[in-house]
Amino acid sequence: MAQPLPVSPLARPMPELGVVRGVRLGAAAAGIRYKGRTDLVLAEFTPGTTVAGVFTQSKCPGAPVDWCRAVLPTGQARALVVNAGNANVFTGRAGRQTCAATAQAAAEVAGCTPEEVYLASTGVIGEILPVERITTALPALHAALSDTGWDAAARGIMTTDTFPKAAIRKTRINGTDVVIQGIAKGSGMIAPDMATMLSFVATDAALPAAVLQTLLRVGVKTTFNCITVDSDTSTSDMVLLFATGAAGNAPVADTVDALTDPALAEFKTALDDLLRELALLVIRDGEGATKLMTITVSGAVSDESAWRVAMAIGNSPLVKTAIAGEDANWGRVVMAVGKCGEPADRDTLSVSIGGVCIARNGTVTEGYDETPVVAHMKGQDIDIAVDLGLGNGTARAWSCDLTHGYIDINGSYRS
Amino acid sequence: MAQPLPVSPLARPMPELGVVRGVRLGAAAAGIRYKGRTDLVLAEFTPGTTVAGVFTQSKCPGAPVDWCRAVLPTGQARALVVNAGNANVFTGRAGRQTCAATAQAAAEVAGCTPEEVYLASTGVIGEILPVERITTALPALHAALSDTGWDAAARGIMTTDTFPKAAIRKTRINGTDVVIQGIAKGSGMIAPDMATMLSFVATDAALPAAVLQTLLRVGVKTTFNCITVDSDTSTSDMVLLFATGAAGNAPVADTVDALTDPALAEFKTALDDLLRELALLVIRDGEGATKLMTITVSGAVSDESAWRVAMAIGNSPLVKTAIAGEDANWGRVVMAVGKCGEPADRDTLSVSIGGVCIARNGTVTEGYDETPVVAHMKGQDIDIAVDLGLGNGTARAWSCDLTHGYIDINGSYRS
Repeated sequence: MAQPLPVSPLARPMPELGVVRGVRLGAAAAGIRYKGRTDLVLAEFTPGTTVAGVFTQSKCPGAPVDWCRAVLPTGQARALVVNAGNANVFTGRAGRQTCAATAQAAAEVAGCTPEEVYLASTGVIGEILPVERITTALPALHAALSDTGWDAAARGIMTTDTFPKAAIRKTRINGTDVVIQGIAKGSGMIAPDMATMLSFVATDAALPAAVLQTLLRVGVKTTFNCITVDSDTSTSDMVLLFATGAAGNAPVADTVDALTDPALAEFKTALDDLLRELALLVIRDGEGATKLMTITVSGAVSDESAWRVAMAIGNSPLVKTAIAGEDANWGRVVMAVGKCGEPADRDTLSVSIGGVCIARNGTVTEGYDETPVVAHMKGQDIDIAVDLGLGNGTARAWSCDLTHGYIDINGSYRS
Repeated sequence: MAQPLPVSPLARPMPELGVVRGVRLGAAAAGIRYKGRTDLVLAEFTPGTTVAGVFTQSKCPGAPVDWCRAVLPTGQARALVVNAGNANVFTGRAGRQTCAATAQAAAEVAGCTPEEVYLASTGVIGEILPVERITTALPALHAALSDTGWDAAARGIMTTDTFPKAAIRKTRINGTDVVIQGIAKGSGMIAPDMATMLSFVATDAALPAAVLQTLLRVGVKTTFNCITVDSDTSTSDMVLLFATGAAGNAPVADTVDALTDPALAEFKTALDDLLRELALLVIRDGEGATKLMTITVSGAVSDESAWRVAMAIGNSPLVKTAIAGEDANWGRVVMAVGKCGEPADRDTLSVSIGGVCIARNGTVTEGYDETPVVAHMKGQDIDIAVDLGLGNGTARAWSCDLTHGYIDINGSYRS
C-alpha cells in the first residue's frame, strides 16, 4: 500500500503478554517487500516441544503449507520462520526450493533438523520469494531472540493488518499452572476453512502431539472456522499450536480422549477461549470494517446446517453493505437464509436484530417498532439472530460490514 | 434511492423492438413506492398462449413465485402483472391475499380465469404490498394496452436498474417466420439459481407448453444461471416465456425432443442467443459495475465442475475489486480456484488474462511480460481464462467488478 492504512475503529489494544517458558522469539526487517518495518519472524522452541497444526483446505495451497503438512506427522518442533509480504504461493519448484533453503538455514542456527522447522508466508501470490533475504537475516535474528519477543512477532507477521493481534490465558493442567499465548494476523482473504492466515499459539504445558492435534482441530471449528471477512479462503491459512512442556505438569498419555478427559477440561476451555479471541481480533481488523457482526442461528436441522446458514448471512454482500449503511434491512437476512441451500421453511423462520424480534413465521411481527433496532444499528456491535424453527442445530459466526474501505484496500493491493 | 443513479458505463442502447403478434402490453404509474415513474406493467396474451417458467431456488421465495409455480402446470397464460418497488416477499398471509386479489382484478379486465394470470414483484423485501394501488390502476392500464408497449414495459419493471433491457431475435420454425422478444430487469441481488429477477420473453411461435418448458430450462442453464453480480440469490427470480401461436407455424407435437428435433433447431439457437443477451444486459447494469468480466473455464472434470469454478471466480470479492482497480492480480484467480471445493491441481493449472497465458503448471510463465495484460485491464471487457488440466469440462460465466458504486447503492437502499 502506498499509504499506511488507518487503524480499524474496531481495534483492541494489545493485552499485557507474558512469557511461555521454552519459547524465544523475535522479528527483523529483511526487506522482503515492505520498507522500514519488520517482516521476518523467528521462534525457537525447547527440545521436546510438541506441535499441532491445521491448514487451508484450498486446492492451491502455498509451498509453506505443503512443507508444514509434510513435517507435521513427527509432532516435534524446534523452530518457526514466518515472513510477510510474499505468500510463496503458485511459485512451483522455486517455491519448494525456497522452503527447503529456509528450513535448512533455520535448522543451522537452531541446532536441529530441517524437519523440525515450521514455515509460513503471507502476502502477494505468484511472485518468487527472495529467499536469500531470509537466510541472510536469520543468524542475527537468532542471536537476538528473547522470551519477551511476542509483541515484536505479532507486528512482524502483519500485512494489511492495521493493529497487532495477541491473546493470553492462564490455566491449569492437573493442578499445574500453565500459560497459553498466541498471535494472529489476517484482514482480507478471510474465510478460513480450517484456520486463518496466520495464527501461532504456544503453551508451556506438556502434551503429546496427538492430544494437541485433537484439541486444536476441535477448537478451530467454533472459532477460526466461524469467521469471514469476504468469503475468500486464503491459500496460506494456518494455525500452529506448540507445547514446550516447560511447565512440568504430570505427563498426559497420548491415548487420552482429549475432549472428555477431566484433567484437560480447564485447559481445553482456556484454549478455545483464546482461539475465539484471536479469531475475533482478525474480524475486528477486517479490511474496511467499521462494525462487528455476530450471527446466531438456532432451530436448524443440525449444527453443520446452522453453521452454513450463519456463514451465508455473514458472507452476503447485501447484508454486509446494509450493516455498513446502518440499515436494519432484515429482508436481506431472509434472502441469505433462502439462498444458501440448507433446509429452511419461510413460514417457520424468525429474524431478530439487536434482540428485537422483527419477523416470525414468515411475516413481520405485529406492531413491529423499528426504533430500538435503528439505534442498535448505529453501534459497533451488531447482533443478528435467526431461528429456523426446524430442529435443534445451532451455530455462531462472526463477520464485519462491507465498506468503501474494502474497495480502497483491494483495488490497489499490489500497487 | 434519494438520487437517480448515473447510467452504467456498460449500458447498451435499446434495440429497435418489434411486435409479437398476440401480445399487447403497457405500463402505468401506480405509486407503489417510486414517485413520478411507471411501476406497474400489464401484458395480455391471445387465447391459446402457452407458457413456461423457471424460478428462484431460494427457500424463502416471494408470494408471486409461489403463485406462478402453482398455476404453471396448466401451461396456459392470458395475462402478466408485474410491479416494481415492493417484492411481496416474507409477507405471510397478506402476501398470498395480495396475489389472489391482483390475479382476480387482472382476470376481470382480461376476460380470463385468475389461474391464467402470472404475477411478479420486485423491490424491497418484508413490506406489505399496497394491493389496492394495483387493482385500482389495472382497468385504465388495460384500456391503453398496445402491441408496441414493450419499451414502456422494460422501463416499468426497473428498480435500481440504470437502463432498460430488451432483446429481439427473428428466426424460423419449420419454414415459418417467428419472432422472439424479451425484457429483463436486474442489477443487484444477482446470482440466479434458475433465473434472474425478472425476465419476460414472448414469441409468436406455436409451441406446446412442455416443449417451451424444456427449451427454457436448458436455455437458462448457460445464460441466466451463469451470471453473478454479488453472489446473492433473489427471493423473486423468475423467467417466463410465452408463446402466442400467432405466427401460425405447423403444429409441434408436445412429445418431440425439444433439444434435438431439427424443426426446432433454429428456434432453439435464437432463443438461447436472446436469453444470453438479456442475461448480459443484467450484468452490464450490475450495481456499481464499470467492467464486464467473461470467465472461461476448461479442463475441468465435468461441465458442472467448470461452472462452479467459473462462478467462484466471478463471485470472489478480491477478484472483483482487483478488476475494479485494473490490477492483473492473477494470484486472486488462483485463490478462487483453490477455495471453491472443486477438483483442481495447482500443478496443472493455467491462468490467462486478455488472451495472455500468465501462469502454467503451478508457476508463472517464463518471461511473462505484464505489459499487454495491464493494457487489457484498462478496457471495459475483461477476459479471464482458466484451464484446470484435468478433463474436458467447460463453462463460461459473466460477472462485473466490485466498486464504490456497489457500496453507495446498497448501504442506503431502503432510505
